[in-house]
Amino acid sequence: MQPFPESVHRARLEAAASEAAGRGVDAVLVTPSSDYLYLLGYNAPPLERLTCLIVHPGAPPTLVLPHLEVPLARHELGALADGIELRPWEETDDPFGVVGELLGKGRRVAVQDQMWARFVLRLRAAMDGVDLVEAGPMLNALRRTKSPEEFDRLRAAARAADQAMDAITAGHLSGRTETDVAAQVRDLLRETGHDSADWAIVASGPNAASPHHTPGERVILDGDAIVLDIGGTANGYASDTTRTAFVGLPPEEFQDLYAVLQQAQAAACDAIRPGIAARDVDRVAREIITDAGYGPLFTHRTGHGIGLETHEEPYLVESNPDPLREGDAFSIEPGIYVEGRWGARIEDIVICTADGGERLNRSSRDLRIVA
Amino acid sequence: MQPFPESVHRARLEAAASEAAGRGVDAVLVTPSSDYLYLLGYNAPPLERLTCLIVHPGAPPTLVLPHLEVPLARHELGALADGIELRPWEETDDPFGVVGELLGKGRRVAVQDQMWARFVLRLRAAMDGVDLVEAGPMLNALRRTKSPEEFDRLRAAARAADQAMDAITAGHLSGRTETDVAAQVRDLLRETGHDSADWAIVASGPNAASPHHTPGERVILDGDAIVLDIGGTANGYASDTTRTAFVGLPPEEFQDLYAVLQQAQAAACDAIRPGIAARDVDRVAREIITDAGYGPLFTHRTGHGIGLETHEEPYLVESNPDPLREGDAFSIEPGIYVEGRWGARIEDIVICTADGGERLNRSSRDLRIVA
Repeated sequence: MQPFPESVHRARLEAAASEAAGRGVDAVLVTPSSDYLYLLGYNAPPLERLTCLIVHPGAPPTLVLPHLEVPLARHELGALADGIELRPWEETDDPFGVVGELLGKGRRVAVQDQMWARFVLRLRAAMDGVDLVEAGPMLNALRRTKSPEEFDRLRAAARAADQAMDAITAGHLSGRTETDVAAQVRDLLRETGHDSADWAIVASGPNAASPHHTPGERVILDGDAIVLDIGGTANGYASDTTRTAFVGLPPEEFQDLYAVLQQAQAAACDAIRPGIAARDVDRVAREIITDAGYGPLFTHRTGHGIGLETHEEPYLVESNPDPLREGDAFSIEPGIYVEGRWGARIEDIVICTADGGERLNRSSRDLRIVA
Repeated sequence: MQPFPESVHRARLEAAASEAAGRGVDAVLVTPSSDYLYLLGYNAPPLERLTCLIVHPGAPPTLVLPHLEVPLARHELGALADGIELRPWEETDDPFGVVGELLGKGRRVAVQDQMWARFVLRLRAAMDGVDLVEAGPMLNALRRTKSPEEFDRLRAAARAADQAMDAITAGHLSGRTETDVAAQVRDLLRETGHDSADWAIVASGPNAASPHHTPGERVILDGDAIVLDIGGTANGYASDTTRTAFVGLPPEEFQDLYAVLQQAQAAACDAIRPGIAARDVDRVAREIITDAGYGPLFTHRTGHGIGLETHEEPYLVESNPDPLREGDAFSIEPGIYVEGRWGARIEDIVICTADGGERLNRSSRDLRIVA
């Protein structure tokens, strides 16, 4: 990932400290993760050796890390290292004791959402009377609102994924296995500018009814619906798009289902504006699908936020009453699944601007007829 | 990954339950991870939606999972699904409450080592008076001892990594950037049979002194030492090997350092036998390096276990007095690092058999002179 200017990371570290202070939290502990990347501009290997950034309101951040990773950290932090105290530990030290000593007893300490349970339990044991809380609310509040530069990176990632999608559906799919097509999707994701191809769902025939199908040895046949859900990471930011293809002439029944889905997906995209409740976007899509009689076949939420991670805040689901805000980025991806038979999904990444939604994926959303 | 026979997974689930019972644990909670893969034979996406296998001593396992992942789970579990109770939750349900209800109050519950902190804290809140402990000791005790079939997979992964290593050092390296060479290593790892290329450390010149260097835009020059540490996953099992190259004629000083390192690495490999303490293997390598005057420059442990994960039990480090056992698999990888100047490391995967150590990596360990 091309780093953002040092000033961006300093501002993020200060904002995290200030979020923590505002919630009565004495320290935020951040192990390698997208939060770590967000704050420091590089990611450390998520290994069994503890690397832990400590954000304390009112004091400079401290980075507790294995001695052997000091050169990596100095190299990656660059000028940012000046404002951060490095506290290396040796192979035979107890790193949890090191954090415990730095923080003292009886504190209210937030832990990064994906910190390993093993670390959580050992840190708890090393800090007498600690009150552990989730760091998510503090860090998500910051990460959720993307800057114009972050929007640009999401746009570039979406464009690359669109190219990969168009390339895969322009080729021959029938007679090939799902895994073979998925391997080509991964190659295409890399060729179009992703640094990593993170997944490639190729769900054909009855498998298209399984939203998170893992591509297998099934051979794609004439008369199959194929759900293609693909994504990767480009310059630190995630892409995620889904299109549905059909091998040969789709029966009227499938065309009807698809028309409803396409209408629901478009309506949800059109509903985006700052202030609309996340759940109301879900309701827009769900109502159209339900009114057409497919309600119980739309088995998942309408979307998820996206950024450094493929799934992050905000979630577009019935249980989320929070209003969308300018700066949000998320997927809109309703689906209809008929078990044992077929399925369809359409997914775009959409950003919420002052003027409403902007769809970052631009490739055709029509059912793709393939050979 | 080609699954092992269903009977293997049934036996592993029973062994996990019995390990838990033996430690007074009422349930083991396993979220998607290598432990989940080990027990069930497939991995679920590690997402914000809770998927959690519950192993209860004395009752069949329960799998709590998002409704939309039921088809995936049924498909992947195959015949194993018969003995497992599936408990799907809907998008608007509270999955932590579901687990809490299944387990009841005041229990002693073990959580998988890498379970997300967010899940740990929410599960704790959903289970009044729960005593949370680490599942690591139970599951690592099982995973650590590899079967002959697992040894075969590790052998195949090591062979593939050796081929990739030989191919990369046979080519021209000087004048190229580290990232360019690293990209070729990743391609080679896939071409030689890995399902994924997990990392490629290419650390040249002064960067070779950083054990976990991230390849960057530095151009490789004549007179550089280059540490190449590469690995991936083949059929579920990890490879991990390091060789050191030198561009042009190495100065005597570097040749001397390398000769000591090679001797230390060989001696540690030769010391492997069931019953030797993990730390004594570390001491064998360290003593040779220290006696030659390089002691403080060997800044990390001698090795780590390997299997489904690149780093797992047993760790070959001064703080680990546990004896090695037949069935262990681990790296032997001493290194010597001179800050600002150069570095070297040699790494093989070694398995511990009744007859002693068997090195799975067979490519030449001599300093590789490259152009």
